[in-house]
Amino acid sequence: MNHAGQFVWPHRVRFSDTDASGRIHYTAMLRFFEAAECEYLRSLGVPYSLMENESDSYPRVRIECDYTGPVRDDDVVDILVSVERVGRSSFTLAFDASVAGRPAADGRITIVCISRATQSSRPLPENLAAILRSRAAGSQAR
Amino acid sequence: MNHAGQFVWPHRVRFSDTDASGRIHYTAMLRFFEAAECEYLRSLGVPYSLMENESDSYPRVRIECDYTGPVRDDDVVDILVSVERVGRSSFTLAFDASVAGRPAADGRITIVCISRATQSSRPLPENLAAILRSRAAGSQAR
Amino acid sequence: MNHAGQFVWPHRVRFSDTDASGRIHYTAMLRFFEAAECEYLRSLGVPYSLMENESDSYPRVRIECDYTGPVRDDDVVDILVSVERVGRSSFTLAFDASVAGRPAADGRITIVCISRATQSSRPLPENLAAILRSRAAGSQAR
Amino acid sequence: MNHAGQFVWPHRVRFSDTDASGRIHYTAMLRFFEAAECEYLRSLGVPYSLMENESDSYPRVRIECDYTGPVRDDDVVDILVSVERVGRSSFTLAFDASVAGRPAADGRITIVCISRATQSSRPLPENLAAILRSRAAGSQAR
Repeated sequence: MNHAGQFVWPHRVRFSDTDASGRIHYTAMLRFFEAAECEYLRSLGVPYSLMENESDSYPRVRIECDYTGPVRDDDVVDILVSVERVGRSSFTLAFDASVAGRPAADGRITIVCISRATQSSRPLPENLAAILRSRAAGSQAR
Repeated sequence: MNHAGQFVWPHRVRFSDTDASGRIHYTAMLRFFEAAECEYLRSLGVPYSLMENESDSYPRVRIECDYTGPVRDDDVVDILVSVERVGRSSFTLAFDASVAGRPAADGRITIVCISRATQSSRPLPENLAAILRSRAAGSQAR
Repeated sequence: MNHAGQFVWPHRVRFSDTDASGRIHYTAMLRFFEAAECEYLRSLGVPYSLMENESDSYPRVRIECDYTGPVRDDDVVDILVSVERVGRSSFTLAFDASVAGRPAADGRITIVCISRATQSSRPLPENLAAILRSRAAGSQAR
Repeated sequence: MNHAGQFVWPHRVRFSDTDASGRIHYTAMLRFFEAAECEYLRSLGVPYSLMENESDSYPRVRIECDYTGPVRDDDVVDILVSVERVGRSSFTLAFDASVAGRPAADGRITIVCISRATQSSRPLPENLAAILRSRAAGSQAR
């Protein structure tokens, strides 16, 4: 949490995240988002260890990301996570990444709950949906 | 090239592309797109070995992707690449991925030409821009 | 197969395999080995799709690799695969990687068959063991 | 540092580190080692930002690793790093990984200092060699 009550996850860039351009490979930022998402959901009391189980799975169905500044080896990327939208069977998280206050990337990822048995979407578990909705409302209030 | 004169790159999924969901990690699809992009540009006579050099670099500035079907280990993903837009210093490629004819993903990636010296965008090299424009026109004609 | 009857798998290096050193990240070579292993076993008629199933899994229990020359983006790495040893529940494959005839890496990987139910090692399936043994014998004859 | 004065780096496993076996891909452990190595050298006052520069680079020339226990998503892997050997132009680090006290992997990695200009090995910088030697001696004293 930062001073404004927002969830921020700091992620140290590793050499294996870089490519021959001397910056990170652009897919590395998406893995940083994934780590931030995981810790954000843990902070809300709904860790993936409870969500992803024998009956349900949470694949990504849409991603988008704008890359707004270079990120290099050993940089610490601060990733602000917020809930953008909560639907019936999916939700969208927004990510805002910066390095030492300089913008680096901003993205949004939509995650859907599917039943492993049918491989079709199913409604989000009610407790997860309620928690996400309360955060989405909180976001709007800020 | 497929029978319609489109560029299609087949990519075999490897075990290291998968994750514990049993499907590919969603970032793997973006690496498949990158391989397809590289081979597409080679097929047009403008390989990255000519583009990426001591003065210029080609980072991605925007990506988006919809995931429309599951992809698993050892699947062959067919990736159709086309030019969607050619600007002054950037261009956008579109990717349409399928497995045995079933839709898997479609995305678009915007790549900008930057000067390594200034780290700012610079106009696309004229020969690259001309080739991309001819393909974008070709796409519209289809 | 090369002219000496050996199995060689060519693998194109991708930009995502490189790191900020300008060469490939050293773990990329191990992913190339994995692709070569998969195709080697397919060529022997024992694809992983038959091996890895609901009852058995094939984790790696030991790897070693010497890196003997630089590998860069867009290089084609030729990977020669051979069977070094076949035990009761494990086998060791040897990998010899080169780029345009220059040595790049050589490694060995030991793979064990485990039962998913017990998570303990179990004897290799007899047909797999027989095929691997015939190739190991063949290797010694060369 | 743990209570025995050893350097231990805890690393949280991410979903992108896993594969379809339900465990981590075996190359993920090597990336965890790399993070631990980086932090170990920082703790000794010789961060890679000082080592890797315009004249020198530090590729790996040999790795080996035994995998001794399963590692899964969200596990915290504790990685103990120590100096095993310091040569004229290379050094070997040893890694001992565990999850909640259960063994997971142990490996050793040899890193060589090369001159970017000649792409040949060169003697380790004296301050780096001295610090590593003092730690190797310390290891033996334990």
